[in-house]
Amino acid sequence: MKNTAELESMRHTLSHVLAAAVTKLYPHAKFGIGPAVEDGFYYDIDFGKTKVTDQDLAKIEKEMHAIVAKNLPMEKRTVSKSDALNWARDHKQDYKIELIEELPEKEEISFYDLGDIFTDLCKGPHVKNTNDIGAFKLTKIAGAYWRGDEKRNMLTRIYGVAFKTQEELDEYLRRQEEAKARDHRKLGKELDLFCFSDLVGAGLPLFTPRGTELRELMANYSLSLRGREGFKKVWTPHITKTDLYKTSGHYAKFGDELFMVHSQVNGEDFAMKPMNCPHHAQIFASRPRTYKEMPVRYMEATTDYRDEKTGELGGLSRVRSLTQDDSHVFCTKDQIKDEVKRLVGIVKELYTTMGMQNLRARLSYRSDEDKYLGDKKLWEMAQNQIKQAAIDNGLDYFEQEGEAAFYGPKIDFMAEDAIGREHQLATIQLDFVQPERFGLEFVNKEGKKERPVMIHHATLGSIERFLSVFIEHTGGWFPFWCAPEQVRILTVNDKVSDYVAKITDILDGIVLDKPLKYNELRYTVDESADSLGKKIRRATDMKIPAILIVGPKDVEAKEVSVRLRDKEEKVKLTKLADYLKNL
Amino acid sequence: MKNTAELESMRHTLSHVLAAAVTKLYPHAKFGIGPAVEDGFYYDIDFGKTKVTDQDLAKIEKEMHAIVAKNLPMEKRTVSKSDALNWARDHKQDYKIELIEELPEKEEISFYDLGDIFTDLCKGPHVKNTNDIGAFKLTKIAGAYWRGDEKRNMLTRIYGVAFKTQEELDEYLRRQEEAKARDHRKLGKELDLFCFSDLVGAGLPLFTPRGTELRELMANYSLSLRGREGFKKVWTPHITKTDLYKTSGHYAKFGDELFMVHSQVNGEDFAMKPMNCPHHAQIFASRPRTYKEMPVRYMEATTDYRDEKTGELGGLSRVRSLTQDDSHVFCTKDQIKDEVKRLVGIVKELYTTMGMQNLRARLSYRSDEDKYLGDKKLWEMAQNQIKQAAIDNGLDYFEQEGEAAFYGPKIDFMAEDAIGREHQLATIQLDFVQPERFGLEFVNKEGKKERPVMIHHATLGSIERFLSVFIEHTGGWFPFWCAPEQVRILTVNDKVSDYVAKITDILDGIVLDKPLKYNELRYTVDESADSLGKKIRRATDMKIPAILIVGPKDVEAKEVSVRLRDKEEKVKLTKLADYLKNL
Repeated sequence: MKNTAELESMRHTLSHVLAAAVTKLYPHAKFGIGPAVEDGFYYDIDFGKTKVTDQDLAKIEKEMHAIVAKNLPMEKRTVSKSDALNWARDHKQDYKIELIEELPEKEEISFYDLGDIFTDLCKGPHVKNTNDIGAFKLTKIAGAYWRGDEKRNMLTRIYGVAFKTQEELDEYLRRQEEAKARDHRKLGKELDLFCFSDLVGAGLPLFTPRGTELRELMANYSLSLRGREGFKKVWTPHITKTDLYKTSGHYAKFGDELFMVHSQVNGEDFAMKPMNCPHHAQIFASRPRTYKEMPVRYMEATTDYRDEKTGELGGLSRVRSLTQDDSHVFCTKDQIKDEVKRLVGIVKELYTTMGMQNLRARLSYRSDEDKYLGDKKLWEMAQNQIKQAAIDNGLDYFEQEGEAAFYGPKIDFMAEDAIGREHQLATIQLDFVQPERFGLEFVNKEGKKERPVMIHHATLGSIERFLSVFIEHTGGWFPFWCAPEQVRILTVNDKVSDYVAKITDILDGIVLDKPLKYNELRYTVDESADSLGKKIRRATDMKIPAILIVGPKDVEAKEVSVRLRDKEEKVKLTKLADYLKNL
Repeated sequence: MKNTAELESMRHTLSHVLAAAVTKLYPHAKFGIGPAVEDGFYYDIDFGKTKVTDQDLAKIEKEMHAIVAKNLPMEKRTVSKSDALNWARDHKQDYKIELIEELPEKEEISFYDLGDIFTDLCKGPHVKNTNDIGAFKLTKIAGAYWRGDEKRNMLTRIYGVAFKTQEELDEYLRRQEEAKARDHRKLGKELDLFCFSDLVGAGLPLFTPRGTELRELMANYSLSLRGREGFKKVWTPHITKTDLYKTSGHYAKFGDELFMVHSQVNGEDFAMKPMNCPHHAQIFASRPRTYKEMPVRYMEATTDYRDEKTGELGGLSRVRSLTQDDSHVFCTKDQIKDEVKRLVGIVKELYTTMGMQNLRARLSYRSDEDKYLGDKKLWEMAQNQIKQAAIDNGLDYFEQEGEAAFYGPKIDFMAEDAIGREHQLATIQLDFVQPERFGLEFVNKEGKKERPVMIHHATLGSIERFLSVFIEHTGGWFPFWCAPEQVRILTVNDKVSDYVAKITDILDGIVLDKPLKYNELRYTVDESADSLGKKIRRATDMKIPAILIVGPKDVEAKEVSVRLRDKEEKVKLTKLADYLKNL
């Protein structure tokens, strides 16, 4: 459900209802700001010496329901700045005083009255009456500095969620519970995929053997799809002189966000690369090129570094070290359509494999503003080619003017996960600017120098961010081909060792070919003296897709019990390899 | 041939002979310093306004031979500082004046007289007479700042080489020529393996598709050997808070050599990792460990950054971005021998595959000094285990006391290349200190907490440096399995396209299994309209190991001409796959 204007008004009104309820219960409460946000609303409140906790939410929520039930009107009125200040002083609303004082002297200031029970300084908009309010719920309490400034007072932020109907709210809460159970930070720890170290720092995950297996399988699969389409791997260092970004133009635009690297030995200044295009452009420029070798296609799975605020870092969703499965095509203007089509095909194949349905694509074009660089005719030709490529690939697309990057039109892909959340992941971006800035050229059929077009593409995007989505999408039950540990053999007792050796001989010979070639089976054996129940619990906790249970009866019957997530069956040893290959 | 004391004296005397010859030819020359160096000698000379170039070397060398032929004695005498200064002033030797002035007031100062033709301030030692001088040759002229200070005068440095016999000198010069032809910087460009960009910076190579293929094959081969031995890949970011190195102790020792990384957003300070051990220790520490899972073995092929002086950077031999095929074992004290044995086996296998013979190993032990950290008994036990592992592996080893790192004993490996140069590459190092500093522990069989031992190991060492050696070792004629382009098909005319398709069908099915598994054949087709001669030249220039030449007669005979480096033969199409697999 999207945030429509109506929904937003309702959520905004609920923040006033919350404040009204709080005023009734805590008459000395002072209010900061209380906006509508995605899925709901909040209010920042100074409760003075009173401590308000999650325990108090039910009481406040009950009071809110009582207020809503009164069918109170929300009415706007405008007052002068001095009247506004008098009101705020009368009500001892210190934070409102501060806000009003900052407004221009002659501005008309709007207030909203909630019936006759609560008045607030507010720009609106709001619903007309509390009977327009749907279903809501207070969800949590957190601390928040007044105006985000850690030198000011810490206020209490009360969060709520709200939807038009109870069904929608229930569905939302169910999804939240589901998402919580799938939280990739929780699963990352439980499944031993990655860790953080205070000594290394926030936003810099370290991947354990299992997590490394997973990220390499993802990266290698993405590389294999592009390799099949003629992309060649290149390798570029993680730092560069800032000159590279001064030439590319990134320094002027994003210079503040670069991690700066300083040489103590030579005093030289470098930056960590936040993207790879300028490096790849240098490889293209390293020798003369002719039309015969165009398009030139480079790919790399390499780690970029972006200087994010510590507060914005969380698990793998936002990291400082982001590994991009990055590609760059250098092609002629006529080759744009075919190259984009090729890339769209790769995106479709990858997200189908990942089981992420309902792929949607946004085609972003230029508008008539003059912020766009490059010849307008070239833009139009390119936009047509992109659209044709989308049509040819049978893509579910929509077009948006004015959403292009300044350097060229683009396609962004949105994929839906198992619990219906949409994530923007892959991207294909045309670039008319960098080839110009780096003076890239090739000799065309006529023997003349011509400027290539550059196409940026990432299929997974950042592998870390993709993993955060993929772990939650699968709930940690990874598809068989990419599970870090695909099979675990559990012994019922210590009489079956010889038989286990026969099974591991079979497993050693299994190499999966789809979707990634040369994918050798990964298994372990749990021959410990623990009870079978304990062994099964341990394997299930690790979400091993196939658990092989081996007891004396299996030895006799020349079979093995295979326990999958949703079923358990006996499989003859002679059929075991095929059985596992088809999981 | 090693630099013995005698050889060094002779080379040192030759620098005086050089100065004597220069004095005769250029009476106004002023002398800086003239030491013996590896393989020869040099002298830094101020020729005033006279320009001396490589053209003049023959003349100077002739004069040197004339001096040597006079069988002049080299005689030492000591003088007071004031006498020394008087001599230098009389001879207008400004640089010598500066050197003498810096000597302590009461020191006796030594001079050497070369017969009666040349006197120099010098500590010696020298040969007794010029008839002790063997074969020598002046090789080149370069500029050198007086005392290495770029604010002082630029002097002219004349280099020479010298050996006991003419045969040795000839052999040396032949090797130099050979090395020059194999220079990896030259081959790197010719074979399109890597490039540098002024915008990116010195010491930061960018690898083109061919070079990336090569470096990945090397890295993957190294990883595959270790994977077979139970090492698991991990992944760690390239930066870390400096806290990590403060805890590990590296900051105190190598803090000045770190590339410092500064966050403009948060003001936090990071460093680029110059090694991976502390990161790997953090992964080990990320959850509790028991004796059951020991040894824990991690590996990674990851890029470290070291802040080298710009002047010391050259091709791939010394870079700022060095990718290590790094491993760390965390084991119990009793497991040291087996783990070292395992690593030695990997080293032997890898260098045998690379065709680098005569692997020698230096076992470095502690001495009685107290710079070594960790329990002495533990050291002795570990040294014994290392030695036993060397013996068990039939290693050609020698032992050196006092050469160990402060944190543990080690083995360094020296491998010889095709032109007889020895390179120090792989290393195995025990570490008793980092486990202590990071508080690493595991629960032993008795249920008690115990400290593991850490073993550092790199097989190739730095992949960049290894490649610099390997490119020169092979002269760019890479073994078939790791050639970036293994096969090129050349067409004699345009009538053979269908037949070429049959051949490429065969090539598409070829996957090499040794020494690296799943190694798909890499080939291209040159169907251009150029003459066959031109196509062959182009393929040979790129040192493609197998060139397939396809003409109309081959179509009829159902065969193809295979041109290898040293022979050419007809191969039936039915045998082609096997033929190529066995190259």
